[in-house]
Amino acid sequence: MEDAVRKALMYDFYGPLLTPRQQDIYEMYYGQDMSLGEIAEQLDISRQAVWDIVKRSAVILEEYEQKLGLIARHMEQQEHLAQVESCLKKLRRLIENQERAASIGALAEIEQLIHRIRFEA
Amino acid sequence: MEDAVRKALMYDFYGPLLTPRQQDIYEMYYGQDMSLGEIAEQLDISRQAVWDIVKRSAVILEEYEQKLGLIARHMEQQEHLAQVESCLKKLRRLIENQERAASIGALAEIEQLIHRIRFEA
Repeated sequence: MEDAVRKALMYDFYGPLLTPRQQDIYEMYYGQDMSLGEIAEQLDISRQAVWDIVKRSAVILEEYEQKLGLIARHMEQQEHLAQVESCLKKLRRLIENQERAASIGALAEIEQLIHRIRFEA
Repeated sequence: MEDAVRKALMYDFYGPLLTPRQQDIYEMYYGQDMSLGEIAEQLDISRQAVWDIVKRSAVILEEYEQKLGLIARHMEQQEHLAQVESCLKKLRRLIENQERAASIGALAEIEQLIHRIRFEA
């Protein structure tokens, strides 16, 4: 996963565990893509102070992910849902072509995938 | 949701954020369903100490849920997955009966549900 995407996902999942100040600065930097200089100017603090907070926040979020693994779990689930979508497309073609036996086979595959998603979550 | 189920789910999601000691005691009490007296005896501490740790751990887990809402999100997703399963059952009957148009309608409904699950998660 691209680092910026991961950094943003981290914030989506664990952002509320940061202090409001950390949340603001992390979000400006990774969410709004502001530069350290822009953030420093807006908050009237040094660039170094901004950078320290960004780095520290990223470490805190990473520690939560190490413990809870929500992003790893989320990515795995997204992959399984993508598989379901691809099976649904296949099933649509089979139904349109009235291939009854093959349709039921594809349906069984989807049922298994859904079952797995339900009980892995 | 039944309180005991919720307490167990809390531990599944946020358990790693407790100290090892809190984890052990919370898990004995809510996971293994041991009594305060049994835990106290096994760990050679007072019943009151066990109870304090159980209560304190439950508060900590609840605070994380207040901030991150993973259990609320999980329950919502489980509900949507149950809807998908019910639609799949309906679809199976329609395919078996060779009702092509209705099958495609049911399929579209499933596609929408899956899409919603993907992007709400």
